[in-house]
Amino acid sequence: MEFVANIVVTLKPSVLDPQGNTVKEALHSMGYNSVEDVRMGKFMELTISADSEQKALDLAHDVCNRLLVNPVIETYTLSLKAQTGGAV
Amino acid sequence: MEFVANIVVTLKPSVLDPQGNTVKEALHSMGYNSVEDVRMGKFMELTISADSEQKALDLAHDVCNRLLVNPVIETYTLSLKAQTGGAV
Repeated sequence: MEFVANIVVTLKPSVLDPQGNTVKEALHSMGYNSVEDVRMGKFMELTISADSEQKALDLAHDVCNRLLVNPVIETYTLSLKAQTGGAV
Repeated sequence: MEFVANIVVTLKPSVLDPQGNTVKEALHSMGYNSVEDVRMGKFMELTISADSEQKALDLAHDVCNRLLVNPVIETYTLSLKAQTGGAV
């Protein structure tokens, strides 16, 4: 079965986010002063072939911890769903 | 009131994603061959001060269309929620 894992990687709240600050200042310079804060992150969509949802979930967490996420400064959220119309 | 807008910007399906391909190849070289595809995107969290949820939503869409998203090659999804514990 095929599964799609949506992964959002964000900086921990205590970590400075210069990219987010730059976007915030750009928005302020365009007149969007009601935007009080901007935090940037990464989004990844993984298509995983696995026998079961649990195996796909385990693999996705493993991949996050080993390659995609730096646990010193980042956290991640992960959601998995079976792909409709995928190979069974 | 304060609202938090979570914005996920992804490349349109027809657009090549070299960054995603690089991650996929890195995963394959680490033995994660069951990862069939990787697509990269951006995640942004905007804290918005607005009178109503509708105004915050309108502002967030406006900001996406004017600065954060390139509509030629990207699409975005937007979810908004009231911030708990924010200034009222």
